[in-house]
Amino acid sequence: MPGKSNLAELNCSLAKAMNEVGDWWTLLIVRDAFFGVARFGQFQKSLGIARNILADRLERLVAARILRREGTRRRPIYRLTDKGRALLPALVALLQWGDAWTSASRPPVLVTDPFGNALAPIELRSQYMKVDVGGVRFVAGPGASARTRAFMAALVKDTEHD
Amino acid sequence: MPGKSNLAELNCSLAKAMNEVGDWWTLLIVRDAFFGVARFGQFQKSLGIARNILADRLERLVAARILRREGTRRRPIYRLTDKGRALLPALVALLQWGDAWTSASRPPVLVTDPFGNALAPIELRSQYMKVDVGGVRFVAGPGASARTRAFMAALVKDTEHD
Repeated sequence: MPGKSNLAELNCSLAKAMNEVGDWWTLLIVRDAFFGVARFGQFQKSLGIARNILADRLERLVAARILRREGTRRRPIYRLTDKGRALLPALVALLQWGDAWTSASRPPVLVTDPFGNALAPIELRSQYMKVDVGGVRFVAGPGASARTRAFMAALVKDTEHD
Repeated sequence: MPGKSNLAELNCSLAKAMNEVGDWWTLLIVRDAFFGVARFGQFQKSLGIARNILADRLERLVAARILRREGTRRRPIYRLTDKGRALLPALVALLQWGDAWTSASRPPVLVTDPFGNALAPIELRSQYMKVDVGGVRFVAGPGASARTRAFMAALVKDTEHD
């Protein structure tokens, strides 16, 4: 059993994802990049974030290959890479949850198709069916470590005896 | 223009979502709750997190009504509320992104339908069509503040002149 874990070392893709984008500001920087924000000053103005924190987060996002730095050294611009653009479903899912459960009133920002029609709430599906929260199962995958397998087997046992 | 912003004060549902679940550990605690983890010791063993941090994060999740505390005071159990269960699409979206872009090899954990078929990659759809990352538009919504409207209008202008 480990002591304080490093997120990246946990045998879990969600932990690895949170290690890269789980900082309070990081997904908001990515959101701004989807909006078309590209320059340091624009991010700073949009987020009201301290310059040193913004510089650090942009550096990390470039190191994680979520953003790509282009332009000149004195006037860099930041663009989403394919890896960064692949965050869109997660970003929309969190935005929809925020709209439904945390925003006092009406959504500040709408996400739409090219013709202005709002996106539908995200659905989970397998090849055969729509899956709701009660139907979802979590099972050890091909990349599970022995510890992960033991943990998930113990959970099933715990739940059965609860 | 504000100084250092409080995330909850930004006029954005994603910011409000990150204010509640944007801590490095929080979504992993929620993940464990989906797995069926319910007791302090189980979370501790699963995450290898320091006890004082875990206690703090559980307290915040209860305060945010994402988890509900049941059982006895000496042996509490933690269960997802409806608000917590509504995080599943965001959690699966982040997990799928982690599988695709951060896990060295094969997925440690599979998410399946009740018959063991893996979930498909999440798709964004409007009422009329599937929307990919190039087709998505962000527009000021009915809850946008004057500042949000101005910001998004300025972005369109910036992009046009880039």
